[in-house]
Amino acid sequence: MDSDYGVPRELSEVQKKRALYQPELPPCLQGTTVRVEYGDAAIAADAAGAHVISHAFPHTYGQPLAHFLRKTANVPDAKVISEHPTVRVGVVFCGRQSPGGHNVIWGLHEAIKAHNLKSKLIGFLGGTDGLLAQKTLEITDEVLSSYKNQGGYDMLGRTKDQIRTTEQVNGAMASCQALKLDALVIIGGVTSNTDAAQLAETFAEAKCATKVVGVPVTLNGDLKNQFVETTVGFDTICKVNSQLISNVCTDALSAEKYYYFIRLMGRKASHVALECTLQSHPNMVILGEEVAASKLTIFDITKQICDAVQARAEKDKNHGVVLIPEGLVESIPELYALLQEIHGLHGKGVSMENISSQLSPWASALFEFLPPFIRKQLLLHPESDDSAQLSQIETEKLLAQLVETEMNRRLKEGTYKGKKFNVICHFFGYQARGALPSKFDCDYAYVLGHVCYHILAAGLNGYLATVTNLKSPVNKWRCGAAPISSMMTVKRWSRGPAATQIGKPAVHMASVDLKGKAFELLRNNSSSFLMEDIYRNPGPLQFEGPGADSKPISLCVEDQDYMGRIKKLQEYLEKVKTIVKPGCPQDVLKAALSAMSSVTETLAIMISSSTGQAPSL
Amino acid sequence: MDSDYGVPRELSEVQKKRALYQPELPPCLQGTTVRVEYGDAAIAADAAGAHVISHAFPHTYGQPLAHFLRKTANVPDAKVISEHPTVRVGVVFCGRQSPGGHNVIWGLHEAIKAHNLKSKLIGFLGGTDGLLAQKTLEITDEVLSSYKNQGGYDMLGRTKDQIRTTEQVNGAMASCQALKLDALVIIGGVTSNTDAAQLAETFAEAKCATKVVGVPVTLNGDLKNQFVETTVGFDTICKVNSQLISNVCTDALSAEKYYYFIRLMGRKASHVALECTLQSHPNMVILGEEVAASKLTIFDITKQICDAVQARAEKDKNHGVVLIPEGLVESIPELYALLQEIHGLHGKGVSMENISSQLSPWASALFEFLPPFIRKQLLLHPESDDSAQLSQIETEKLLAQLVETEMNRRLKEGTYKGKKFNVICHFFGYQARGALPSKFDCDYAYVLGHVCYHILAAGLNGYLATVTNLKSPVNKWRCGAAPISSMMTVKRWSRGPAATQIGKPAVHMASVDLKGKAFELLRNNSSSFLMEDIYRNPGPLQFEGPGADSKPISLCVEDQDYMGRIKKLQEYLEKVKTIVKPGCPQDVLKAALSAMSSVTETLAIMISSSTGQAPSL
Repeated sequence: MDSDYGVPRELSEVQKKRALYQPELPPCLQGTTVRVEYGDAAIAADAAGAHVISHAFPHTYGQPLAHFLRKTANVPDAKVISEHPTVRVGVVFCGRQSPGGHNVIWGLHEAIKAHNLKSKLIGFLGGTDGLLAQKTLEITDEVLSSYKNQGGYDMLGRTKDQIRTTEQVNGAMASCQALKLDALVIIGGVTSNTDAAQLAETFAEAKCATKVVGVPVTLNGDLKNQFVETTVGFDTICKVNSQLISNVCTDALSAEKYYYFIRLMGRKASHVALECTLQSHPNMVILGEEVAASKLTIFDITKQICDAVQARAEKDKNHGVVLIPEGLVESIPELYALLQEIHGLHGKGVSMENISSQLSPWASALFEFLPPFIRKQLLLHPESDDSAQLSQIETEKLLAQLVETEMNRRLKEGTYKGKKFNVICHFFGYQARGALPSKFDCDYAYVLGHVCYHILAAGLNGYLATVTNLKSPVNKWRCGAAPISSMMTVKRWSRGPAATQIGKPAVHMASVDLKGKAFELLRNNSSSFLMEDIYRNPGPLQFEGPGADSKPISLCVEDQDYMGRIKKLQEYLEKVKTIVKPGCPQDVLKAALSAMSSVTETLAIMISSSTGQAPSL
Repeated sequence: MDSDYGVPRELSEVQKKRALYQPELPPCLQGTTVRVEYGDAAIAADAAGAHVISHAFPHTYGQPLAHFLRKTANVPDAKVISEHPTVRVGVVFCGRQSPGGHNVIWGLHEAIKAHNLKSKLIGFLGGTDGLLAQKTLEITDEVLSSYKNQGGYDMLGRTKDQIRTTEQVNGAMASCQALKLDALVIIGGVTSNTDAAQLAETFAEAKCATKVVGVPVTLNGDLKNQFVETTVGFDTICKVNSQLISNVCTDALSAEKYYYFIRLMGRKASHVALECTLQSHPNMVILGEEVAASKLTIFDITKQICDAVQARAEKDKNHGVVLIPEGLVESIPELYALLQEIHGLHGKGVSMENISSQLSPWASALFEFLPPFIRKQLLLHPESDDSAQLSQIETEKLLAQLVETEMNRRLKEGTYKGKKFNVICHFFGYQARGALPSKFDCDYAYVLGHVCYHILAAGLNGYLATVTNLKSPVNKWRCGAAPISSMMTVKRWSRGPAATQIGKPAVHMASVDLKGKAFELLRNNSSSFLMEDIYRNPGPLQFEGPGADSKPISLCVEDQDYMGRIKKLQEYLEKVKTIVKPGCPQDVLKAALSAMSSVTETLAIMISSSTGQAPSL
């Protein structure tokens, strides 16, 4: 293992200035008293799977939401925690690096020390490897000094992504016990937070004193649900990529002879591609969610792009920019089915060279049709979560080749009369992952770090730190915690051979909501994006001046703040109770009954139609 | 042709703020009087080729340097131009887009209008195509409004790169005459400025009234000589690329399992790669100039990288970042020879499919050894300047494959004991070309635009606008003009079949100077870059705050200001004349003679040893 973890680094001028940046804290996290108010028990949005989830997480499912309140909040039920014994907290980076990760640790360290100077924060070196091997580094002001507001995960490093097998889970427990940890904070995305929930449950079962807390950090933006509005790193990644996409758009418009097909990192969901499209207005984006919803084949998509190229050529435009999320390949039905077959054969231990000969006739025909480079990439071993190695599959090149062939055919046939179709392919991923985090990501991560301390001060286990109302200024942010198990869903089918995993509850990645406002914004503009070249350059990520405080467009247009509304509802219910107290006039009571009866009936019908279950009144 | 040229664009917040930025003018360009001082006749640094050049450019070779002076400068010989008749000036973007190009036009427009409101600036649409077809757009404040300080060439567009054939040259002349242009300003790199010189000469010969002025704008930074310190766009490209390289370095250090091989756009010379290395400190850079000087084969380079990987693995470092200039392939002797053979066969009209069968046995053996993807790329038609299509040849993937094979061999053999070598390849080029220009490029380009007006006010033809002492603040910048023909050299050999072009004078791209201070800085740090991971992130390009005013490191460490020194020398010679006037004491005259005799003798010997010619005293 590298011995360079946590060493001070030489910083550039910009980095030095960034290192001095001090994020703000929302009022509810200020001071040294933790005030927590509990809501109702949180249930899984996946009503049909709730039983499976509660069965798998007997100790940690059904716990209440927690809201952290400002000192002056007038909430009589809030629990006030003013004693802060010395604690020992471990923290580990899990999964892919995402800009802002370091700030979670900084915020957590600040909060721990603010409440008790003797408490200690211990970082695990090299991700889960370090967790299992008990390789640690005590986090101090000195260690943090050159990592505040900086990108990457290099202060501690990360290696493998999972704490999944019984051996790994027991290893993690042994480490927590050996190091006498009061809490373990896991920084990661959907997979890592699923692991965090599992650890929490196992620890509770084994009466291990360590509480487990998760933090939503992933560049993909796909850990998103009623409690989580966005993830740390998503804003930065979209800003860095949007800048590059815009540069390429300007390039296309200047030279007027190239199409650029750009694949974007972001795993299976298309959040990054959607956000980048809203920021930079390229001509087209092929969202995986749309493709899946319309069951488009690779040939449909090719035709769609070719028709667009042709329409543009008729307006004398022989250039353009097309965005392709890396997960697209898994959203195209026939390619997904092919991948599932390949992964199934991998699972059976068939070697890479022999897989193609063992495919079903149908899959084999498709496989043989594909160009050799993509065949090789499809044959790669799946990732640990059974998804394809999306970053290695050059879908943009496959589409480029298919579109080129088709445009040449149309040209020959005379149906296309534009210039020869020229395409240049790009993959934007690794070059953004290590970027300096945006101000928003710095703030969000730092605040989440503080929230983690509040969670452990409240003694909660199996919770994810949450900050909501994020589109408002920091002083309006709401801080809380939600049980990770309530974010889980249960997959009820699977084509692959990974049948053993069917039905296992997990935090699954959220797709782009095709009924959401961000998608609506795209749809309303897509024809002008396509034809009018209204490219927009958000510019390089700025830390001062205009644009420095911007947030993801998809975050700002969505109508979120679920946590705020849940709290508001609770207030209304309390108000009814206060007004309609025993002793109140009969007609007031009657009015209340009549109103509430109608409300409950309406809601019961709504919920049954949305979950497919009979209303249980 | 696209009808969208010059239309106002929707700007982002950052772009809007940039559009309001007003670059400063150095004192010598302020006010409405142009003061020009002429130096001695400029000779070509290529002394051996001077005869050929002067023969090819009888009207425009041997013209004096021009220095533009501030109003208050005490130089009695300076010519003062205070009358500014109405002029009509044409401007055209030639060659690849480079950030800052729009500002040259803005500066030129400002200067033209400041001296005579009735003068007109006419932009040619779609590059040289528009020049030949007389497709124009009058540049106005309104047209400029959304292009000030913005990237790309989309205000006017560009298509083909050359004005080379007799037909093209005559077409350009016909356009200039039809539009009654007093001057034509050509914005481009080495090729375009060679064309500009040729046009100037042809126009002079044909007594066409249009004067031709060149402006050094190219992202490659390879139009560099005693008169030109750097080119417009180089700073931005290096900043954008350095940011991405640094992000990848951080990524490598966080994950500790990948090597990244990054190829950088920049044509044959390695200026971009050198500057990016100095800014972001990746582990290795393979400069084409070093490879050429040491005559390293592709196997030598592979071995060098493998040894580095092995040495790093011994220190438990299984990650790293290697930069590869796109021109490297032409610097590797055997690959260059192979390319020359291929281009020769192209020249003879042999079709791409048949080339491999007609190679010499030696070249054929090498060709067959190479992986199929690179063979296909090597077979591409050469560019118009007979160089390979460097942006299309994935040298980074070739090296990745060779290194991987060798590391696997060493692993098997047991000589390498590190982790399996994993490599990810990138090409950084197009994503930087359309970037918002840095403050330095905005300023430099804007000032060069003004200088163009001064050149035409002075009635000069075949000159390149120059600004020197660039590493100092804008108010210390020196503005002038140098005959383009004095920057030319004559190639005295060529292996290829393009024998007809041998000996034609041209402005050739400048290589990285292996005796220069920038290279020295790299050499002094290369072993710590290699082993110590002292990665540095200059951050995203900033427009405010720290880093916003930084300039290329290679510009700042070099000891330049040739134009300033030439002027200083002139002042000393004048001083000697002033002191040693007829009537001065005999011993003063004797001392002057003795001193000057020794000085001239020393200089004659120095110059003869550097050019290989006998001193002609």
